[in-house]
Amino acid sequence: MKKLINDPFDVVEEMTEGYCAAHDDLVKRVGRRAIARRDAPIAGKVGVVIGGGSGHLPIYLGYVGPGGADAAAIGNIFASPPARPILQATLAVNGGAGVLYIYGNYAGDVMNFDRAAAQAAAQGIRVETVRGTDDVAAAPPTEAGRRRGIAGAFFIVKIAAAKAETRADLDAVFATARKVNANTRTMGVALSACTVPAYGRPTFELGPDEMEIGLGLHGEPGKRRARIEPADKIVDEIVESILADIDYQGSDVAVLVNGLGATPLEELYVLYRRVWQILGARHIRIRQRYIGEFATSMDMAGASISLLRLDTEMHGLLALPTNCPLFKQSSS
Amino acid sequence: MKKLINDPFDVVEEMTEGYCAAHDDLVKRVGRRAIARRDAPIAGKVGVVIGGGSGHLPIYLGYVGPGGADAAAIGNIFASPPARPILQATLAVNGGAGVLYIYGNYAGDVMNFDRAAAQAAAQGIRVETVRGTDDVAAAPPTEAGRRRGIAGAFFIVKIAAAKAETRADLDAVFATARKVNANTRTMGVALSACTVPAYGRPTFELGPDEMEIGLGLHGEPGKRRARIEPADKIVDEIVESILADIDYQGSDVAVLVNGLGATPLEELYVLYRRVWQILGARHIRIRQRYIGEFATSMDMAGASISLLRLDTEMHGLLALPTNCPLFKQSSS
Repeated sequence: MKKLINDPFDVVEEMTEGYCAAHDDLVKRVGRRAIARRDAPIAGKVGVVIGGGSGHLPIYLGYVGPGGADAAAIGNIFASPPARPILQATLAVNGGAGVLYIYGNYAGDVMNFDRAAAQAAAQGIRVETVRGTDDVAAAPPTEAGRRRGIAGAFFIVKIAAAKAETRADLDAVFATARKVNANTRTMGVALSACTVPAYGRPTFELGPDEMEIGLGLHGEPGKRRARIEPADKIVDEIVESILADIDYQGSDVAVLVNGLGATPLEELYVLYRRVWQILGARHIRIRQRYIGEFATSMDMAGASISLLRLDTEMHGLLALPTNCPLFKQSSS
Repeated sequence: MKKLINDPFDVVEEMTEGYCAAHDDLVKRVGRRAIARRDAPIAGKVGVVIGGGSGHLPIYLGYVGPGGADAAAIGNIFASPPARPILQATLAVNGGAGVLYIYGNYAGDVMNFDRAAAQAAAQGIRVETVRGTDDVAAAPPTEAGRRRGIAGAFFIVKIAAAKAETRADLDAVFATARKVNANTRTMGVALSACTVPAYGRPTFELGPDEMEIGLGLHGEPGKRRARIEPADKIVDEIVESILADIDYQGSDVAVLVNGLGATPLEELYVLYRRVWQILGARHIRIRQRYIGEFATSMDMAGASISLLRLDTEMHGLLALPTNCPLFKQSSS
């Protein structure tokens, strides 16, 4: 294992220290594994709390800040945050209007966020929860609720946070976040495994000419493993799988081409080119596009493609300015 | 070689197509290997033209846009752009106030940019040139003019472009760009080589537990090769080398911790933490900090650290808002 780290068991602590030192104009630490917007809590505003395992930057820490989420709780690499930092995050952003939890649909996260929600409720804070379930490779459409959450969580967080910023009430923010999740689909392709520092070896093995389509962000099994194919062919398969899952015909969409960690930006633009060609041929209009690293898996090589079926509300909220440490957007 | 590409010889063309399709609200194509701001030329404004080989995104394409450079010319992967796209970029941004070229100090780039400058001069366009020479590992201080340009070019481009945005004349923009280069120092560390698509194999070999300190962005030889060490020790060596090169004592600085491509953001924050500790102990104040991928080397694992010794002018210009496709900054 070659990494720019000190003790493998100190990575999350040292990364968090570095992060908070770098961005103390925008965020503050509110627990050993919890950060919040510097201006939290904001009276009368719904607090948006996000979180999950470490090793996926920019998600989740990077999306806390003005125009983004109010707080994030993080766990060790690829491990759910315990209930304690989630509760610390909740209390730090409670402005009296309730709190919305947004995280990916993984058993550990569900257990710990639910536990924190119960503890918050006991203190009189109303909490609602939206779990990202965008990975079409994880389960068939009939069992969509069992799907994992991967990069599509970016859209849920961005849009729900923008809704909360308008001072909408908890029911409205909750409804918008559910709507984003219901209209988001993602599928990925991995060319290599990643190495978790405390483990020291790749989490799985892919042959020198193999790829795996539909692989999860932590190496969960994908749809199929095969010899690597040209990028256009891979994009065709991914986008067709997404388009077959819900009806995007005649819709406007937002596109996210997300790098998993080790894949150069140049390749992500090669992928985007093909997405743009396919959607153009089908008269599906791309209104917003995001290309880069949004939800990574340490140093995994590969990418995922997400489509969000837009309506006027989602389009407008997605376009609002954001000044988070790892996601900045001007008003457009 | 496992990459998300089609024909290895089409990568630059397809990447450029994808890039221009994604960002046509901000940039336009002005040649096969040249892009410019959508609103170029701007009458009375100095045109800032940047460029170099492909394979280093976000630099150079990503820094063309409002608040950034006016145009970029790019070459094949790791190869200088020919004079032709540089001249196309120059003509596209000539607003009558002259043009400034900014690029890294490599023989091929020097030859081609000089040739384009001569052709532009023949058409009555005054061109000045600043070559980035920030890599302290490339030559001793007595031969600083021979040094390569690496990630520190980000500071030159950002600040010179901001100066041009104020409608300063060519002499003033040129002087500011030279000042930034004179006050910027960088050193890197590589943990792995990268693979150029058309070549198909890693550009050099590093052993499974080896690192190379001072390696160049294209695999040029570094200062020393050794067994990998803890991150803090590597940062100590890099920062000490930089601090020994010019006198930062009592100065305010901007810091850039740049990922070379395959290194996770988590590790970059571990590095930043140590930079912050070292500079804090020496009473060198960090006024601005940038952590992420700014100048990469395809899928190389590793990072570089740059320090810019600030004055009031550079600090103010660095803080101005920027809305380039791959570098967005709010007014701070």
